[in-house]
Amino acid sequence: MRIGELSGRTGVPVPTIKYYLREGLLPAGELTCPNQAQYGERHVRRLKLVRALLETGGLSIAATQEVVAAIDTPAASLHSTLGIARRAVTPPATGCAGPHWRQALREADDWVRLRGWQVEPGGPAHASLAQVLLTLRELGQEDLLGLLDAYATAAELLAAAELAVVGHRADPDQRAEGAVLGTVLGDTLLATLRRLAQEDASRQLA
Amino acid sequence: MRIGELSGRTGVPVPTIKYYLREGLLPAGELTCPNQAQYGERHVRRLKLVRALLETGGLSIAATQEVVAAIDTPAASLHSTLGIARRAVTPPATGCAGPHWRQALREADDWVRLRGWQVEPGGPAHASLAQVLLTLRELGQEDLLGLLDAYATAAELLAAAELAVVGHRADPDQRAEGAVLGTVLGDTLLATLRRLAQEDASRQLA
Repeated sequence: MRIGELSGRTGVPVPTIKYYLREGLLPAGELTCPNQAQYGERHVRRLKLVRALLETGGLSIAATQEVVAAIDTPAASLHSTLGIARRAVTPPATGCAGPHWRQALREADDWVRLRGWQVEPGGPAHASLAQVLLTLRELGQEDLLGLLDAYATAAELLAAAELAVVGHRADPDQRAEGAVLGTVLGDTLLATLRRLAQEDASRQLA
Repeated sequence: MRIGELSGRTGVPVPTIKYYLREGLLPAGELTCPNQAQYGERHVRRLKLVRALLETGGLSIAATQEVVAAIDTPAASLHSTLGIARRAVTPPATGCAGPHWRQALREADDWVRLRGWQVEPGGPAHASLAQVLLTLRELGQEDLLGLLDAYATAAELLAAAELAVVGHRADPDQRAEGAVLGTVLGDTLLATLRRLAQEDASRQLA
């Protein structure tokens, strides 16, 4: 199909498609004449994926480029594809200096080790955890830190459930896509459901 | 204390403090001479809160203004303060048009009703849920929708645990602050722990 039809099929305007092509978010079409390219079903699929990452997932163009590259890496394990997706969606922690910060980072490391999670030390998630610990303590909200284990239990249940669904898929491309979408859209979904559950629970107190 | 000492106590540069004062994120100090204001402990506390919302929570200035106003509303119930915090941190859903969108919105409403959650219909969380449903379906990831109930169960557990901690506080200001911080920083914390739990779980598959 020509670019106009690709636009019609996906609802993405032609200038936007051209922008994605320039940014490497969409593979080039097959050139039929010097000025005309043909697109296929995999372009339709990729375009929908890119829109989902950008709009529903709220990723930046740069993060989307990394995620798309991870999906396209042949023979990558599900574990490594997931690692790239995770890094792409984890914003770097800010305000990382001073003795309080180093202490919070050590505490985050210790907590993860005690929890028994086998993860690479010094990743962005450790820094993000340290920042939340530091912030709650600086604000005198230590009692909220008592919720850490409840959050961790919920996170473990969800990680296991997601991997069970995605790991069952036979096609490696579909597995990689599902892993990435689970990571990115899962954040949005969980935040959304948490608001609804909270509204329901706090109404009973009102 | 003078503005310089407030800056020293909190690590926030004086020009940034002046910007927050102009934006109404921080109440004005008490004027001692025409050009000099005095600040107290509540300014220290508020400044830390504002930094936490902006940096750790990733809120915009506008969203932070709404949240701070909610905390400052006297005699507001915990339920209504939470409602304002939730609205401030829920980005509006995009791409809301067409028959597919309306169908997804109906589906989201039906799902929430079946789940038994008593929430205001037509809120931003419903639209956000509809967008995730629509996106997963358009991408042929229907099997991931099977995880919706696992996510909802996790969300319910967390909402109950958060309200139990915050509801126990005696001071209404502390309650409102805790409710807001739980909503905003809870998203960051949960996303962080989910990444760590996922890395641990997928390593076992690798």
